[in-house]
Amino acid sequence: MKRVRVINPNTSLAMTESIGRRARAVAAPSTEITAVSPAMGPESIESHYDEALAVPGVLAEVAAGESGGAHGHVIACFGDPGLDAAREVAVGPVVGIAEAAMHLATLVGRGFSVVTTLSRTAGRTWDLARRYGFERACLGVHACEIPVLDLDDPSPETVRTLTEACREAVARDRCDAVVLGCAGMAPLAPGLAGSVGARVVDGVTAAVKLVESLLALDLRTAKGGEYAAPPPKRYAGPLSSFGRRGATTP
Amino acid sequence: MKRVRVINPNTSLAMTESIGRRARAVAAPSTEITAVSPAMGPESIESHYDEALAVPGVLAEVAAGESGGAHGHVIACFGDPGLDAAREVAVGPVVGIAEAAMHLATLVGRGFSVVTTLSRTAGRTWDLARRYGFERACLGVHACEIPVLDLDDPSPETVRTLTEACREAVARDRCDAVVLGCAGMAPLAPGLAGSVGARVVDGVTAAVKLVESLLALDLRTAKGGEYAAPPPKRYAGPLSSFGRRGATTP
Amino acid sequence: MKRVRVINPNTSLAMTESIGRRARAVAAPSTEITAVSPAMGPESIESHYDEALAVPGVLAEVAAGESGGAHGHVIACFGDPGLDAAREVAVGPVVGIAEAAMHLATLVGRGFSVVTTLSRTAGRTWDLARRYGFERACLGVHACEIPVLDLDDPSPETVRTLTEACREAVARDRCDAVVLGCAGMAPLAPGLAGSVGARVVDGVTAAVKLVESLLALDLRTAKGGEYAAPPPKRYAGPLSSFGRRGATTP
Amino acid sequence: MKRVRVINPNTSLAMTESIGRRARAVAAPSTEITAVSPAMGPESIESHYDEALAVPGVLAEVAAGESGGAHGHVIACFGDPGLDAAREVAVGPVVGIAEAAMHLATLVGRGFSVVTTLSRTAGRTWDLARRYGFERACLGVHACEIPVLDLDDPSPETVRTLTEACREAVARDRCDAVVLGCAGMAPLAPGLAGSVGARVVDGVTAAVKLVESLLALDLRTAKGGEYAAPPPKRYAGPLSSFGRRGATTP
Amino acid sequence: MKRVRVINPNTSLAMTESIGRRARAVAAPSTEITAVSPAMGPESIESHYDEALAVPGVLAEVAAGESGGAHGHVIACFGDPGLDAAREVAVGPVVGIAEAAMHLATLVGRGFSVVTTLSRTAGRTWDLARRYGFERACLGVHACEIPVLDLDDPSPETVRTLTEACREAVARDRCDAVVLGCAGMAPLAPGLAGSVGARVVDGVTAAVKLVESLLALDLRTAKGGEYAAPPPKRYAGPLSSFGRRGATTP
Amino acid sequence: MKRVRVINPNTSLAMTESIGRRARAVAAPSTEITAVSPAMGPESIESHYDEALAVPGVLAEVAAGESGGAHGHVIACFGDPGLDAAREVAVGPVVGIAEAAMHLATLVGRGFSVVTTLSRTAGRTWDLARRYGFERACLGVHACEIPVLDLDDPSPETVRTLTEACREAVARDRCDAVVLGCAGMAPLAPGLAGSVGARVVDGVTAAVKLVESLLALDLRTAKGGEYAAPPPKRYAGPLSSFGRRGATTP
Repeated sequence: MKRVRVINPNTSLAMTESIGRRARAVAAPSTEITAVSPAMGPESIESHYDEALAVPGVLAEVAAGESGGAHGHVIACFGDPGLDAAREVAVGPVVGIAEAAMHLATLVGRGFSVVTTLSRTAGRTWDLARRYGFERACLGVHACEIPVLDLDDPSPETVRTLTEACREAVARDRCDAVVLGCAGMAPLAPGLAGSVGARVVDGVTAAVKLVESLLALDLRTAKGGEYAAPPPKRYAGPLSSFGRRGATTP
Repeated sequence: MKRVRVINPNTSLAMTESIGRRARAVAAPSTEITAVSPAMGPESIESHYDEALAVPGVLAEVAAGESGGAHGHVIACFGDPGLDAAREVAVGPVVGIAEAAMHLATLVGRGFSVVTTLSRTAGRTWDLARRYGFERACLGVHACEIPVLDLDDPSPETVRTLTEACREAVARDRCDAVVLGCAGMAPLAPGLAGSVGARVVDGVTAAVKLVESLLALDLRTAKGGEYAAPPPKRYAGPLSSFGRRGATTP
Repeated sequence: MKRVRVINPNTSLAMTESIGRRARAVAAPSTEITAVSPAMGPESIESHYDEALAVPGVLAEVAAGESGGAHGHVIACFGDPGLDAAREVAVGPVVGIAEAAMHLATLVGRGFSVVTTLSRTAGRTWDLARRYGFERACLGVHACEIPVLDLDDPSPETVRTLTEACREAVARDRCDAVVLGCAGMAPLAPGLAGSVGARVVDGVTAAVKLVESLLALDLRTAKGGEYAAPPPKRYAGPLSSFGRRGATTP
Repeated sequence: MKRVRVINPNTSLAMTESIGRRARAVAAPSTEITAVSPAMGPESIESHYDEALAVPGVLAEVAAGESGGAHGHVIACFGDPGLDAAREVAVGPVVGIAEAAMHLATLVGRGFSVVTTLSRTAGRTWDLARRYGFERACLGVHACEIPVLDLDDPSPETVRTLTEACREAVARDRCDAVVLGCAGMAPLAPGLAGSVGARVVDGVTAAVKLVESLLALDLRTAKGGEYAAPPPKRYAGPLSSFGRRGATTP
Repeated sequence: MKRVRVINPNTSLAMTESIGRRARAVAAPSTEITAVSPAMGPESIESHYDEALAVPGVLAEVAAGESGGAHGHVIACFGDPGLDAAREVAVGPVVGIAEAAMHLATLVGRGFSVVTTLSRTAGRTWDLARRYGFERACLGVHACEIPVLDLDDPSPETVRTLTEACREAVARDRCDAVVLGCAGMAPLAPGLAGSVGARVVDGVTAAVKLVESLLALDLRTAKGGEYAAPPPKRYAGPLSSFGRRGATTP
Repeated sequence: MKRVRVINPNTSLAMTESIGRRARAVAAPSTEITAVSPAMGPESIESHYDEALAVPGVLAEVAAGESGGAHGHVIACFGDPGLDAAREVAVGPVVGIAEAAMHLATLVGRGFSVVTTLSRTAGRTWDLARRYGFERACLGVHACEIPVLDLDDPSPETVRTLTEACREAVARDRCDAVVLGCAGMAPLAPGLAGSVGARVVDGVTAAVKLVESLLALDLRTAKGGEYAAPPPKRYAGPLSSFGRRGATTP
């Protein structure tokens, strides 16, 4: 049995629940999914500020997962917050959902478009696309201007707005795949799949399958270079416990 | 049960066998692997010429797989020969081993190096790295100058030479992962994993897991654009049967 | 006298004829043009599948040209099918028409647009533009949705549609040159030149002049690296004769 | 009088002091420099983990600066931690020292090299160089393997090691400028300037002058798009005060 | 006192005056600004031809500045004419206004657009954006089709046209900053700042602050490589005096 | 008969003679080559300063050629000085020798290296490689540190030094072609061709063939955009005649 923890970096438990359900729906029989939220940080992530402040909670969850025997982690926010640091902390694989969705999207067609929540997050998506090597494969980033928390138990109008945004992305960019730019959209992916005229890639499920793949191939994060465990040191203030955590990471 | 065909684009049956064994070793219980070779083409692929001429055989195998009910295909030669065309022919996912190895290699570290067979094939590897978006993640391409067929039932010296080439790649490029640049190297991956100072990524197993992932997520190749089934037409000469195949692809 | 073979990679003899006429119209008095089609392969090239399957025929023609004393070759399909492999096989220069048109187009202005046949081929054009270094010089790729074979003895409406597509490309991209994205458009280039508001570059004539230039400067393909003759080996099935060809290439 | 806060993102007060002295040495008479450290976070930043966990403290200092009437901020750690988020929080300009050093380095020559502390931080430097547009101007990133805290009151041997690393960077890369890759190196910049054979750019002083320049030109951060104040929301746990801060940012 | 010469590369003295006024308005109290025009060359720069022929006059002014004790130079035409050569001639820093504006524009937001005079100069702007590393940060180049000399003592309609062009750039590109693409627009910058919906960056004032910054940090042009003083040699004809100048540059 | 003027941008008549001889050696029988030097400017071009100051003379020669009925121009200095401006002035094609050599070098192999004179000119070569799209194809730029005028009637030692530099470039870069980075090296190209282990591309002959090719295809510079004739205007001082020239260019 492989234990995979799916970390929802915001503190909205309802979203954590539905992300977990979606992850379990695609996980292999030999994978045990645990969906968790951090004990600290923002209730939703809609700015660089929110994202940066979600990271301590994500790292605490990764450290907790490590000491609890988790084999791998998914970071289930489309900004992939804390991914590099999480790879330093964890021994097993860590995959972000933006990363995962973009990787798989390039395997089903020539180009993908991202449909994200607020337009102010589009820059982060482009940054990630460039960082991962997909600046050419990413044909467009489109905001549907739906706040993240509206995706929890979404109204029919929210679903309509999102569907329309996906269709417009396909029409404008002639993309082969639409990547859903928020973990909160994951539960809507199956419904969207048949109605937007392109493949629909949801990063939560994509990341679960990539973590499973890495585990099956024993491809844990390389620890001989940049992702070696962080050197232990003193941490001050409300974050002081992170110093100990860093120190004890193998 | 998902039926995945692993196509060895050269006609060396011994290599097909060992590639198949390696694929089966990592496949999920619910995946049935069939390893096949084309009925036409070169016994090994060591030039643009060989690679181009391996493609008709690959496409024939993809078409045969499609009509035989295969759910997905792996193209098991590091040049990913015929990948675009195979995606047009197949309804299910098709993944090349160079593509697969490079994708997964970027998830275990910051950069990877490729160890390939003959130096004359390095240019093709760079072309693929650029095509897939990994020109920055790919830190180097190193030839060990071992002919492809020497990898079948390799001598201890061949193994030593390959191991040394991997170590040198790690030392020179400070890479986090070594990507094995030939399907024939796949059976040697487990032995190399502990002895080169970096993760070792073998494209055959990587591609099997990616095809399984795409199948689990129902992410078949998008058919609304460039990868639509090729328009049927007349084909002349020894390739005339390919016209009919094109025509009947759904 | 320099013998230059212009290979039409599809098997439509009428198109081969008109391509040959166009080539002869610009060739130097000291150049003898022979236009040929392969004995195998598709009647037109409108997909990755067609293009890949046109390559064996192209390579057979290059090998025949070599043994028949040809000094240089043009590959007259806008996907430049088999170009790398043809450079391995031939001793003299080999130039593709996409490559040739793009090179010359950058000498007459700051940017060019490509007008191609079917939209499904646009991706291949972008791949080539990137491969050759012209991703910035290429301002757009526009499909006129005319099937390749309709360009043979084209109707007035076909000519009108193509002219209109060129004009739209100029208006949208403010390009200095329109590159015709199909060898079958070559005979229409003179008529288009005066009516689209930009220079019109036809790859067939461009490639003839580039092959002549390389011959005049004795710049044959370098044979010390990636384009060395392919190593001889056994080939199976209907392609078995290609093994012998590979073996005897100097 | 313009009030500029220089935030040392780690909690080492001695380093904060010396960074402040260096900043004051180059500030205009009309600039008042205040050097501060966060109340929470790591004592030095030597990993992605440290850097991510330094960000909450940086953002708290920026918010404190804003409410205290600061006109601009410098983030004085070479990873530019929290820069995007700080720009959302602050009304006045915020400049990171990596950013500042790279910008000015391109004005004194054709290429620069970065000399950083530990080799594990080189990847972050390359990420920033690419993000800011300087992937071509940056000719190399070289680690001197000096831990950050050894730069406080450095021994003669530490100075020698750093000097030697700078000289080697110049010799290997033929760079016109050496960028010092750690705020802790700033006090050593004047001593290095005459002895490494290239201009020496220290990000702390570079950032002070850039913030002054932006203030003189009234070029505050644009607030109409991605850097608008973050939407207010609930924050949980030890970071709960950040929710209020976000809410009250104008 | 630091003496900074602002060179208007065209020979329109009224424009030189107003550029000088604008420079003085932002210069530090310790900076003495002298605005000069060359004795030779075009009255305005609106083509590659004009720009190339403005360079000798610019270089003569730089040499005159050097022998007259100037500490730094600004080249106040948006094509940054002669910048590399001026850096060879001068000992102190030389900054072009396109360069300066683009650098500072990236510090106030994620992307900028350039509003230039005639559309035929847009290509030069893109060339510079690429050369300086800002091809991604530059979101668009828009011509307002106002001839350069109309910007001297501009009519209300000219101001309206320019304002409208800025607003359209903001609307189309969603840029955070508008960079004014002509030195002649500098005096209009303060008026535009409040009315276009984005920060307005004028290269003249930006360059003055960057030269001051470089001077304060003693970051003169590196002279150990490409920007070493040009080797002395004979010059023929009306430009013969430039040979002597080259020879005497330290 | 097509009249092609080859402009040597420096004033060394002996070099102009030998460049002319080399051009004539490869020109078609129907091409009349005239080699000219400007009446003003530097005797050799070895810095940005020299290059910028060679441009007025080049443009005067292009204008003289235009009014004298020349059909096309070659700019025979490896920095391609004044190329954009010359394209505005001339109606017929203008090709620079760096541009020409790089274009043809990409047709004979996968990568080329440039062997230039002084190391201080390497940056300009990289700028041009990037401008023309060949930053990937260009594998290295190597200086042989031979002053330009030593290439006129070169000593055996100069030839040996150059030969050795070419061989080292081939060994280090594994390039398929060596591009000679100075017009003064053109007469040595035939001797080098057989002795450096790669194809040797000399820009003078390459440019002659490209101009002939453009003329044969009636591909004159596009005049509808950036390369339209420069708008006429007043020019001051020793360059005043250039205003009239600009004005009368059709």
